[in-house]
Amino acid sequence: MEWLTQQAKAVNIAIRQTALEHQANLTKPAGSLGALEEVAITLCGLQDTMQPCADSIFITVFAADHGVAEEGVSAFPQIVTAEMVKNFARGGAAISVLARQLNARFRIVNLGTVGHADLGSKDGIASQRGEYRTAFIAHSTANMCRTEAMSKEQLNVALTIGRDLVDDIILGGVNAPVSQPVDLFIGGDMGIANTTSASAILCALMRAPPTDIVGPGTGVDVTGMHRKIAVVERALALHKDKLDDPLAVLRCLGGFEIVALVGSYIRCAQRGIPILIDGFVTTAAAVAALQLNPSVSPWFIFAHQSAEPAHALALTHCQANPLLDLNMRLGEASGAAVAVPLIRLACALHTQMASFKDAGVSTAS
Amino acid sequence: MEWLTQQAKAVNIAIRQTALEHQANLTKPAGSLGALEEVAITLCGLQDTMQPCADSIFITVFAADHGVAEEGVSAFPQIVTAEMVKNFARGGAAISVLARQLNARFRIVNLGTVGHADLGSKDGIASQRGEYRTAFIAHSTANMCRTEAMSKEQLNVALTIGRDLVDDIILGGVNAPVSQPVDLFIGGDMGIANTTSASAILCALMRAPPTDIVGPGTGVDVTGMHRKIAVVERALALHKDKLDDPLAVLRCLGGFEIVALVGSYIRCAQRGIPILIDGFVTTAAAVAALQLNPSVSPWFIFAHQSAEPAHALALTHCQANPLLDLNMRLGEASGAAVAVPLIRLACALHTQMASFKDAGVSTAS
Repeated sequence: MEWLTQQAKAVNIAIRQTALEHQANLTKPAGSLGALEEVAITLCGLQDTMQPCADSIFITVFAADHGVAEEGVSAFPQIVTAEMVKNFARGGAAISVLARQLNARFRIVNLGTVGHADLGSKDGIASQRGEYRTAFIAHSTANMCRTEAMSKEQLNVALTIGRDLVDDIILGGVNAPVSQPVDLFIGGDMGIANTTSASAILCALMRAPPTDIVGPGTGVDVTGMHRKIAVVERALALHKDKLDDPLAVLRCLGGFEIVALVGSYIRCAQRGIPILIDGFVTTAAAVAALQLNPSVSPWFIFAHQSAEPAHALALTHCQANPLLDLNMRLGEASGAAVAVPLIRLACALHTQMASFKDAGVSTAS
Repeated sequence: MEWLTQQAKAVNIAIRQTALEHQANLTKPAGSLGALEEVAITLCGLQDTMQPCADSIFITVFAADHGVAEEGVSAFPQIVTAEMVKNFARGGAAISVLARQLNARFRIVNLGTVGHADLGSKDGIASQRGEYRTAFIAHSTANMCRTEAMSKEQLNVALTIGRDLVDDIILGGVNAPVSQPVDLFIGGDMGIANTTSASAILCALMRAPPTDIVGPGTGVDVTGMHRKIAVVERALALHKDKLDDPLAVLRCLGGFEIVALVGSYIRCAQRGIPILIDGFVTTAAAVAALQLNPSVSPWFIFAHQSAEPAHALALTHCQANPLLDLNMRLGEASGAAVAVPLIRLACALHTQMASFKDAGVSTAS
């Protein structure tokens, strides 16, 4: 697993500075485009160009089931993970609609579900829907309240799946014979009970108590919330002697999709692909990636603050200033997808606005 | 001016309720798309359809100069109003870029500038840029610290220009022989010193002190802020016996572009066109429209909270919950334009997502 700690690609600081100066010359009061200026300048530094671009978007939703679901921590039955995988692939889910609207490539990677979700093809299904791939690890993780969520081998496989997906999409592999540039990578999550897993991971990585971190997820009631807090407390107590490094945290507390996200994020940063972080579960993966390899930090752009209460805490932990706050709490990459048009507009403003000099507009005194 | 108080078109409450129930059947936890659900449901009620749409956008920037600019309340010289009008028309301004990206119709209406801004055509210029129209009232308003900003006749003309623009774009007139449906109307403002005028209007309409309302606008320093507060205090003191109705407030405190916005907003609501409100200056126009004709309220969708400090207060006064908070403070309809893609995605999600039943996905217990 030595690849995990290899340095991320360096940001081009000189171009970033040039982009900052360029923004100050455009026909508007300095700074008046707010976050749109900042994201355009950030992308210039990351993409090594004065023509930042968010046209080519690759969205991957990693799906997996969680053993801890048996503790009754979700408002939905576990079968929903597999059912939603089918819904993603067939084009009916929120992220399916968003990916179509954005003209984004959209891949679903099924790491293992309890319910049957094999769509009969490893080679993707019709475009305009989602490309479906199976990368089966197990039907679910183990219940983190009883044992480690996954073995060291399973951890390694999940990280590698995330890594190889990125290499595949940018370099072209047997599954992607045509290499395509990717301007922005978006990872998403699907897995019943995965806000419980993500909460436990954030508690361990941020050294925060479960009462600060556990939230309603897809919508459990007060009784469910108390159960969920108790479950996270039990898991943290069971594994307390092993939670001293991020890989052990991921192994003990799961889940496969979160680990695959960590692998994909780190690889994107190493390959120089900017990453748009989605919501609560993906931010748990981002925190793990940052602790495993702090050099990935500049490559993260945080899309939104979700309605899950502890997401704000996790974002602060990442020193993140997310673009949107739309009270969304769906996961499956949806919040990140919604931010894409704003980033595209930011790029267009950066590259197409006239300067004071060219437009013959007087500057501030 | 009897047209001002004619009732706005009624919202279809039954379709709104059906839309609410439809959202609850889509394959996501109830409410998990947050503000995107709300705006789609709102549009269903306003557009009288279960297929809400934000494809056809009409953006108008009203430009005008302000006599109060001579008090030194702006960081920019007054000539910039005319210079920016040219920049809008030629396609170099932020709103020009945004309108192109959104494939929106974009019209600049020049109500009168001190600098020369006649582009030699009343019939619009090449598409992909902005259609330019002159609707000359005067080179600028009068200085509100010395006298009423405009006459009753000028007030009436500015309101009528706003009204007729809306009738023109939706009904087709001599200037718009082809009638086009408009899914969403966006008004914008340009005018050096117009945050001073808007601040004075908001102080009068909200009965708030200038120290609560006046902000840095395009970026004046602390000295400039103090000067701006003193100017607003002088104007309010001078006209204090006349500020008991919104039309008198608009007449005394200006400006032409703010009044034209009021006329266009009220007419949109009467004609049944949803309105996306931009930033600080347009919110001042929205507050005036609401006080003149409270029935317009359901037709306002507030796009963003700007960085101008008192915008938050004005939004609260309107009971508004804006979609975005991107630290923007440019005006010229830019904040509203940036919200359009989100509304388009909200419409796509509403109309294209699968239901639990159709997708065979289990519901929450």
